[in-house]
Amino acid sequence: MKASLPRHIGFIPDGNRRWALLRGMAKEEGYAYGIEPGLELFELCRQQGVEEISIYGFTQDNTRRPSAQKTHFSAACVDYAYEVAHRGAAVLVVGDEQAAPFPRDLREFRTRQGTGIKVNLLANYGWEWDLRGLCDSGQLRSNPVSRLDLIVRWGGGRRLSGFLPVQSVYADFYVVEDLWPDFHPSHFQEALNWFRQQDRSLGG
Amino acid sequence: MKASLPRHIGFIPDGNRRWALLRGMAKEEGYAYGIEPGLELFELCRQQGVEEISIYGFTQDNTRRPSAQKTHFSAACVDYAYEVAHRGAAVLVVGDEQAAPFPRDLREFRTRQGTGIKVNLLANYGWEWDLRGLCDSGQLRSNPVSRLDLIVRWGGGRRLSGFLPVQSVYADFYVVEDLWPDFHPSHFQEALNWFRQQDRSLGG
Repeated sequence: MKASLPRHIGFIPDGNRRWALLRGMAKEEGYAYGIEPGLELFELCRQQGVEEISIYGFTQDNTRRPSAQKTHFSAACVDYAYEVAHRGAAVLVVGDEQAAPFPRDLREFRTRQGTGIKVNLLANYGWEWDLRGLCDSGQLRSNPVSRLDLIVRWGGGRRLSGFLPVQSVYADFYVVEDLWPDFHPSHFQEALNWFRQQDRSLGG
Repeated sequence: MKASLPRHIGFIPDGNRRWALLRGMAKEEGYAYGIEPGLELFELCRQQGVEEISIYGFTQDNTRRPSAQKTHFSAACVDYAYEVAHRGAAVLVVGDEQAAPFPRDLREFRTRQGTGIKVNLLANYGWEWDLRGLCDSGQLRSNPVSRLDLIVRWGGGRRLSGFLPVQSVYADFYVVEDLWPDFHPSHFQEALNWFRQQDRSLGG
């Protein structure tokens, strides 16, 4: 069975720090250059009719990094969430809101509002935190996030790095070698073209 | 941080049915041609000093296939388990032993014995079955299986297909386009060479 358009796509926008270093900037300065590509990608998804997207903002592991990096990636997530909400997305932020690194400004997105394209932004997310929900409440803490059809990762890494392990079980995984701030619409189009060629038999 | 040799490697030996069809055989006849490559791969892992390998035998989803296929992939798993145990591996079979499709002959491998290279064979495995252990007993049903460093999949598919979702969270994922029965030692060597080039910073 060939699929046409993925219903739900995950994005791992990796490579901001490497991109900054290559330009002689401090590592943390790279994150701000990831916002505009994210908005461009959001518009492309909406134009194509994708129903839901999930974006790897930052993880609990990431918060062990130097504070300058934490400040900048947190700010980038806040800016992004407000801008896509302003553009009509139904935003949901998924992450441990009880812990200090969760940005205060993202609290209003802990429940999804609106009827536009669903945008799930992972902020202070951890796969172990997510799975603990199975025992505590009988469901994942990321329970409102549906199963992923396709995951696209920038920056050349061929691993999930803890990204939504349950929703990822059957997802096709496409890797872009370019660093995230070098996003180009052709990356997305090539990922969709590739996805159409994949067999979606799901083990049956 | 660059890694040298992966401590634990997962193998997804996909493509047996496609391989059989290309040779004018019935689909199910392909599985028997997957055993010898698996033994060759086992020997290579042992020679290299890999401590643990996990092999995707068959899943609960797979058991919805026609009974001729079930018979053949079950038989291939049984033959493989006995042969690697005979060669000194510490075999553990991971899967739902309560359900009918679990091969009776694999019951003796439900606890690991021996001190050789660890071989985890997934048979009648299901990721949901695995995760339900978190609630029932506070640990995964695949709990004795350690975290994966590298996953190699044959047959061109770029997805995990439910393979050990928790142990896979940080694993690097390498895809071989050739079908599994066309296994060649160079596939494994290229995967190891590639793995050495990957950054293993794990989000920190």
